[in-house]
Amino acid sequence: MSETTTSTTGTVSTEQNRREQALTEKVIASFEDTPDPRLKEIMQALTQHLHAFIRETRLTEAEWEAGIAFLTSTGNITDDKRQEFILLSDVLGASMQTITVSNPVAGEATEATVFGPFFVEDAPEIPNGGDMSFGAAGQPCWVEGTVTDTHGTPIPNARIEVWEADEDGFYDVQYDDGRTTARAHLFTDEHGTYRFWGLKPTPYPIPHDGPVGAMLSATNRSPVRAAHLHFMVTAENHRSLVTHIFAAGDPQIEIGDSVFGVKDSLIKQFQDQPAGSPTPDGRDLKDRPWSRVRFDVLLAPAGT
Amino acid sequence: MSETTTSTTGTVSTEQNRREQALTEKVIASFEDTPDPRLKEIMQALTQHLHAFIRETRLTEAEWEAGIAFLTSTGNITDDKRQEFILLSDVLGASMQTITVSNPVAGEATEATVFGPFFVEDAPEIPNGGDMSFGAAGQPCWVEGTVTDTHGTPIPNARIEVWEADEDGFYDVQYDDGRTTARAHLFTDEHGTYRFWGLKPTPYPIPHDGPVGAMLSATNRSPVRAAHLHFMVTAENHRSLVTHIFAAGDPQIEIGDSVFGVKDSLIKQFQDQPAGSPTPDGRDLKDRPWSRVRFDVLLAPAGT
Ligand SMILES: [Fe+2]
Ligand SMILES: [Fe+2]
Repeated sequence: MSETTTSTTGTVSTEQNRREQALTEKVIASFEDTPDPRLKEIMQALTQHLHAFIRETRLTEAEWEAGIAFLTSTGNITDDKRQEFILLSDVLGASMQTITVSNPVAGEATEATVFGPFFVEDAPEIPNGGDMSFGAAGQPCWVEGTVTDTHGTPIPNARIEVWEADEDGFYDVQYDDGRTTARAHLFTDEHGTYRFWGLKPTPYPIPHDGPVGAMLSATNRSPVRAAHLHFMVTAENHRSLVTHIFAAGDPQIEIGDSVFGVKDSLIKQFQDQPAGSPTPDGRDLKDRPWSRVRFDVLLAPAGT
Repeated sequence: MSETTTSTTGTVSTEQNRREQALTEKVIASFEDTPDPRLKEIMQALTQHLHAFIRETRLTEAEWEAGIAFLTSTGNITDDKRQEFILLSDVLGASMQTITVSNPVAGEATEATVFGPFFVEDAPEIPNGGDMSFGAAGQPCWVEGTVTDTHGTPIPNARIEVWEADEDGFYDVQYDDGRTTARAHLFTDEHGTYRFWGLKPTPYPIPHDGPVGAMLSATNRSPVRAAHLHFMVTAENHRSLVTHIFAAGDPQIEIGDSVFGVKDSLIKQFQDQPAGSPTPDGRDLKDRPWSRVRFDVLLAPAGT
């Protein structure tokens, strides 16, 4: 008991270390007979890290109780409409880390980011060059690019789903009137190119009136997401890509995207165009300014 | 990208590792402005271990979804009466590890174990030698011992709370009739000794009809707790002790206590006595067999 080990909060005796280590090993061993080898691996790794967290921080019983109370209120606010556990995973970067692990580097393939809760199946199809805003409020934005493989070979007929918040920071599904706006799907043409009218993206907060919002507040973190436009791109024989593009110069990128979705490679120049300047397709926007952005998508091969 | 690192499920490229590590560091940095230094330490350690868990296991998006669904159902079953998050913490050994960390080795002080959900404030007082069973079903058991400090000096007037399940494996509070049985408090005499009649403890399962029970079942683990008798011992100038004693020879000790509460030092010989053999206090148990056990408690100094 004379030997000691240093932890984050002081020193721990050899006998104390032995007791703690023996307990961790006993819990790990309890999963040894798990029939599914993957479940066994996950439960044992979870035990290892959970115990290391408790031991390193010298977690007190009062702090453990606060943790139980936090999980309980997170569970209580969660229902069919509100998913506070996903929010929690998001603000701890666990969602983004899972996506990063699940979408390994494949050459220069475009990076993935969080899916978010606002995707809707069966959004309306628009033609190439069409308008996905469907009247949602916001500054018009011309979005164009190519979809290729990682060797630069164009992919015709790739399906592109796009969705975004309006200038008030709300998705259509957050309104009660059943509207379908600022979401659509389209397909690349025979040259693998696409183009559409959307909206210049607007920052918006994640729901922050629950326990996750309280945690952000207690840690001086912003609940706001950097402004973004969601993409999901799918094509035969290629890995599906779920991503966003972000607007260079958005101050929230420096403050910090609340769910850690920003990757440098996904920050794009949205070029502001003065009112009256000619549009790419001749559309007459009257006295409204607009912007334009280019986003070239490189899809990884399927199975990578 | 030619260099690689081995994980539990294969190799990860250098660039992939860089992206994952950068993400973890970004999340850790997001907590840097937390005003409370202890909260900052806890959130950063939690992030580190959560991300390491995801990276080591190469967690898939489907597995992440299963985790969210598990937490959601754990939250949904939790209410004023049922605390599934505590159960989850218990079966992962997190409760026991927190107690181990919070009750560091202090000489030969008696080891602590889990508190459990069945303690009730203001249980009736019994005199030394009294019966704490209050008619609960089970085999009578004579329990005696001393309460001393770690130098062996007796502690008079130490408060001892004791509670246990009946022979059907239920605590009084699990019945609907408002009974108060198999729980009491008493005080050590001027020699620091105590004695009472209780019941020989019986194994019982933790609630296993919810998500935690499903996890135990999927991992081939028993929900049963090794038979035990709860003690809480408090005395001025000493660290409060929450513990159990277990019965040597209980097969559940080998199978594994579902919440990892067993410590070798807490396993005691319950000596079976045939029907008709004389009792320590001359009590006439008629044709009933009984048992006896000794438990000497050593309290650590306060503030250790
Ligand atoms: Fe979004
Ligand atoms: Fe118990």
